Amino acid sequence: MPTENSEGVLHETAKPAQRYLVPEGTKRFDPRKWATAPPPDAPRHNELRKLRRRSVREISRLQRLLYAENRHALLLIFQAMDAAGKDSTINALLTGVNPAGCQVFSFKQPSSEELDHDFLWRTARSLPERGRIGVFNRSYYEEVLVVRVHPDLLQKQKLPYVDSGGLWQQRMESIVEHERHLERNGTVILKFFLNISRDEQKKRFMRRLDRPDKHWKFAISDVRERGFWNEYMSAYGEAIRSTTRRHAPWYAIPADSKPYMRWAVADIVRDALARLDLQNPEPSLADLAMFDEMRQRLDND
Amino acid sequence: MPTENSEGVLHETAKPAQRYLVPEGTKRFDPRKWATAPPPDAPRHNELRKLRRRSVREISRLQRLLYAENRHALLLIFQAMDAAGKDSTINALLTGVNPAGCQVFSFKQPSSEELDHDFLWRTARSLPERGRIGVFNRSYYEEVLVVRVHPDLLQKQKLPYVDSGGLWQQRMESIVEHERHLERNGTVILKFFLNISRDEQKKRFMRRLDRPDKHWKFAISDVRERGFWNEYMSAYGEAIRSTTRRHAPWYAIPADSKPYMRWAVADIVRDALARLDLQNPEPSLADLAMFDEMRQRLDND
Repeated sequence: MPTENSEGVLHETAKPAQRYLVPEGTKRFDPRKWATAPPPDAPRHNELRKLRRRSVREISRLQRLLYAENRHALLLIFQAMDAAGKDSTINALLTGVNPAGCQVFSFKQPSSEELDHDFLWRTARSLPERGRIGVFNRSYYEEVLVVRVHPDLLQKQKLPYVDSGGLWQQRMESIVEHERHLERNGTVILKFFLNISRDEQKKRFMRRLDRPDKHWKFAISDVRERGFWNEYMSAYGEAIRSTTRRHAPWYAIPADSKPYMRWAVADIVRDALARLDLQNPEPSLADLAMFDEMRQRLDND
Repeated sequence: MPTENSEGVLHETAKPAQRYLVPEGTKRFDPRKWATAPPPDAPRHNELRKLRRRSVREISRLQRLLYAENRHALLLIFQAMDAAGKDSTINALLTGVNPAGCQVFSFKQPSSEELDHDFLWRTARSLPERGRIGVFNRSYYEEVLVVRVHPDLLQKQKLPYVDSGGLWQQRMESIVEHERHLERNGTVILKFFLNISRDEQKKRFMRRLDRPDKHWKFAISDVRERGFWNEYMSAYGEAIRSTTRRHAPWYAIPADSKPYMRWAVADIVRDALARLDLQNPEPSLADLAMFDEMRQRLDND
């Protein structure tokens, strides 16, 4: 089925990496106009699960090469409204990948030590090293999302220059430059906005309230933040438009169907790893000589 | 089959948690006299794999409760000679557990910043928080193992008081006190020594040399350290005897059969989590009132 992307261009059924990419330079991206539901030609749930598992097996294989080659890191950033399924998507994406090869960090309210540093400090300390997959469940993007919707949070940051007009633009510049620096040094960055509709969020909240084993997950603030839906969508729209780059792209994934969303994310991550053309490092002549020596030593052992 | 534990006591086929426990207060534990092969009554490989997968599924379920309850952390420490299978055992143990619920840290040669701190500093920064499973692939125990076998490494640590007689004893005291402190504050600690025989290590090294895709993993130091086998075994023996405690037990697992070893480790971890009697937290009356309010707000939304 033809679908319309953020530039209003119709294109045939495409890979999620094309379909949901928010292209660099776009002026039109708005989450409220972007799909929250899968396209009509989406495979069925069972098929999606099978395809996703196949992608995860491939991600697992490629992560081993990522580690062996030790040239690249992979950073995956997840942002979304509550109940969009960040946790379960991350779980589905990495279950089956060597746990020593990936690290998940969830960023909640910053501590007072963290607030005493610039806004990239706390996440920078958790960036993935070469050979690893690092996942940020929320990230420095919160600084142009929740902080923008609730600017009173800025007071805690005791900024010396608060020019409310330029602040968000400056922050987005800092983010773009930070990501460019990381990319230059070998970190591949993929950013996922899981785009849930307001109605679907309500349904999921209601379901959580009906499940006693999910009660502990719930905070009154989750429902309160729904009241700011439009402010959030504007903030997401601008943040994503301003920071999507060829080397650090945003993907806005429809989140109203979990099986579809999980498959789409896995497919995009698999493709990005595959494009790195990862190889086991070739031993040098010196290595080969060393191996011979080791064989002899072991033989005489 | 009856087997003999470190105290020379015969006991019937037992759970790995009993069979391979090095009991607090033992004077007799010596890795050279401890099993490196599975007992004759061990299940077959296929059966072991099935049992292990079942344990891992249970660990995965219990980790969710660990997170929900948020009272305990679990710290798993792995120590062994090269090629004993630490990496693959950790992989088998955690593949299937929510990646956001566990973190694996491998400790290699300390950096100069780390050497400028006390020997517990670098690992302390990576301890698991409540709700998580933290895995140390090597740990502060290296400070009474490799450093003891190669005491010239101590020079880099610039210790003010080096009384070579008391140093190792003091380090083991520091370790015991550190672990007691962690245990008091909710961290459950399990320590695994994967006990490979010298012959089996040789076989595995030879196999690695024959597999080009494993070459990058190999360092000449791996073979060199074999030359210190006896020194290592003495150091392991004393470290394990001196630091095994009811609240932070050492398990010495036969490592010559990987399927058996992986099953035994998973069984011990599962049992330890099950003993915590983890529960989803009960909502308070105030919580229940809040849920009602949220339902109403959502209904009117």
